[in-house]
Amino acid sequence: MNQVIGVIDSGIGGLTVAKEIMRQLPNETIYYVGDTARCPYGPRPADEVKEYTWEMTSFLMKYDLKMLVIACNTATAVVLEEIKSKLQIPVIGVISPGARAAIKTTQNNRVGVLGTVGTVKSEAYVRELHQIKNKVEVTQLVCPKFVPLVESSQYHSAIAQKVVKETLTPLKGSEIDTLILGCTHYPLLGPLIKQEMGPGVKVISSGEETAREVSAILHYNKTISIQKEPPDHRFFTTGSVDIFHQIASDWLKERKLHIQSVRLGRYLTHSADN
Amino acid sequence: MNQVIGVIDSGIGGLTVAKEIMRQLPNETIYYVGDTARCPYGPRPADEVKEYTWEMTSFLMKYDLKMLVIACNTATAVVLEEIKSKLQIPVIGVISPGARAAIKTTQNNRVGVLGTVGTVKSEAYVRELHQIKNKVEVTQLVCPKFVPLVESSQYHSAIAQKVVKETLTPLKGSEIDTLILGCTHYPLLGPLIKQEMGPGVKVISSGEETAREVSAILHYNKTISIQKEPPDHRFFTTGSVDIFHQIASDWLKERKLHIQSVRLGRYLTHSADN
Repeated sequence: MNQVIGVIDSGIGGLTVAKEIMRQLPNETIYYVGDTARCPYGPRPADEVKEYTWEMTSFLMKYDLKMLVIACNTATAVVLEEIKSKLQIPVIGVISPGARAAIKTTQNNRVGVLGTVGTVKSEAYVRELHQIKNKVEVTQLVCPKFVPLVESSQYHSAIAQKVVKETLTPLKGSEIDTLILGCTHYPLLGPLIKQEMGPGVKVISSGEETAREVSAILHYNKTISIQKEPPDHRFFTTGSVDIFHQIASDWLKERKLHIQSVRLGRYLTHSADN
Repeated sequence: MNQVIGVIDSGIGGLTVAKEIMRQLPNETIYYVGDTARCPYGPRPADEVKEYTWEMTSFLMKYDLKMLVIACNTATAVVLEEIKSKLQIPVIGVISPGARAAIKTTQNNRVGVLGTVGTVKSEAYVRELHQIKNKVEVTQLVCPKFVPLVESSQYHSAIAQKVVKETLTPLKGSEIDTLILGCTHYPLLGPLIKQEMGPGVKVISSGEETAREVSAILHYNKTISIQKEPPDHRFFTTGSVDIFHQIASDWLKERKLHIQSVRLGRYLTHSADN
């Protein structure tokens, strides 16, 4: 059973999910697609997000996938159900694992959600939280400046600190005890967000929670990998291989990465080994 | 979709799982069987545990179950795979959710497991942990005095404090950073165990983790309940209804509980409404 787990994202944010899958399921092989050239998806119309996400999905379907993880909140909100209904393999999004973890964590039933315009507008987290537990009070906050900060590798900078502080100001008066990072890019700003919110607020990372559920579903379906050789992960990006390499090797603490350039759109081709 | 979730345990320990399912999935109805009269299962031979667990399962199968949760580590270790292979509905045990949560939590890959003789001897946690991540070092510890303390309602007592302190002594030199409560009775001793182990050790409760996975699997199978009326839980015990009521109402913080006596064994009958 040497099939791979496909992970797709609008850019490099989904690496937070991939990293957690690697840590929690070290025998699994991941094929990752980051649509860096067309990132961010957050402000795009739903039709475009749907089209691009299907393009990444189609590209990966030629490999022997056992599961597809949509590691992008915007894409999950827009197109998870449609992709799920059309593929034979399990398809996991990042919204319901985050929502479930928040319900497990909150003691006062007040949960905050940070997200992109697309995710917040879709109200996907609110729906998901209320479907499970309708007495949870949800406060959403759009953080439009976070993704560009991460994609431009500035997530350690003083500017990042300033932006995080300013963006989170509206949450300061709220009584939330749990905060969902409703975008897979945000865990790279996680330390700054935690510092800003203080110890009274537990921060939920979609990445960790989704990896946990990937593990549960693989186990449930008896498709967990038992191979003992080190897995051979592959990364595909629609943008610059060099920039992708720089961020991915920093985030994954791994210099040797198999990264390829891929062109998505009308012609699905890939080339330029790195 | 008003089917119920069956939860079975050797006694009242599985209430820690039931309570978490109620908290994390407040729309779901639970039918619980506690085999209090034959508790503890831990020291019993595997054949007996298998027989008793099948008896609880058969008893519940006459209801419209959508899922069965084996909320007893000993029974999970011995008979989960067999029951899983014979029922059409999803069957969830408490071992792999606990193992997965420990893998997510540990930073130094050193994990402790507290369990009954049966669970520890079966090495079910060790196998589960190593199947997922073989570099995790596992230290197991048998805690034979914990279940009787809980079943006799002494989990708040000074004796409990002394027993916990003495039992955990062998773990004091180890470098574990994560400790799995590998028996669903143990969370009732959770505060004492946490206090004894100190802040450097994260304590994993099977109950919380199993509830989380129940939620994930219901969601994955699209069988989550969307009813809005309060659920009508039922509890069946092979032992004293009064003692069961006393412990269950204390633990669930709910005085009005629908508890019935049930006789398991050759004749599967139930009677004596309470």
